[in-house]
Amino acid sequence: MDTELKIIGYVRSEYKNRSETPKQGTEGGIEAVIEIDKEYADALDGITEGAKIVLLLWLHAADRSYLKVHPRGDGSKPKRGVFSTRSPDRPNPIGLHPVTVTDIDGLKLKIRPLEAIDGTPLIDIKNDYQLKK
Amino acid sequence: MDTELKIIGYVRSEYKNRSETPKQGTEGGIEAVIEIDKEYADALDGITEGAKIVLLLWLHAADRSYLKVHPRGDGSKPKRGVFSTRSPDRPNPIGLHPVTVTDIDGLKLKIRPLEAIDGTPLIDIKNDYQLKK
Repeated sequence: MDTELKIIGYVRSEYKNRSETPKQGTEGGIEAVIEIDKEYADALDGITEGAKIVLLLWLHAADRSYLKVHPRGDGSKPKRGVFSTRSPDRPNPIGLHPVTVTDIDGLKLKIRPLEAIDGTPLIDIKNDYQLKK
Repeated sequence: MDTELKIIGYVRSEYKNRSETPKQGTEGGIEAVIEIDKEYADALDGITEGAKIVLLLWLHAADRSYLKVHPRGDGSKPKRGVFSTRSPDRPNPIGLHPVTVTDIDGLKLKIRPLEAIDGTPLIDIKNDYQLKK
């Protein structure tokens, strides 16, 4: 079975490393840009300014060997299975990021709010979802 | 960069092929089981009966070469980019499936409603999300 991901674009953000990046977009997510690879330009057709989309990011800085973590990195809380937490450290570090498209310039989509490191690979876009914690 | 997905489990469902499977869980999704690989047992800790979770499935029967499709397979509608549709045919065929856990028996989680083919690989579980169209 073919389970190799295709990278369809990258995040461009002021956040350059994980320690300065907030855990959730609602906790300090900023305006950022996603730059789509030109090979996937046609797949963007129908995405418009103002659209509420969910970005699927491949959190490449995560540790894929973790099965349990302290929730939100708080050592005073007992460890829990990663599937019951929002830790990026998990077997497949896929992040779900609900954002609004604020501007489209060709293959560059300005979006907000996003809490992801510059250079994070984009692997999918879901249009018109509502996703809430 | 390591972009090879790990398969953490599989869907067990009465739906055996794509043609008989509804497009959305709310359109005929049924009770199904996800069977977690024992290697990932610890990652389940904290998931309880009644939990509302989002399954990330790898839709292995999809065609990864499609960039535009007729929405919902309706040829009378103009083609749109796959990122603005919910088509499983897309570069990375990842499905987001909000379900409720109805029973837990070791590594087998009974969940509903699910519209996915028997044998579909599970790649992640997100706990306590709300996801709506």
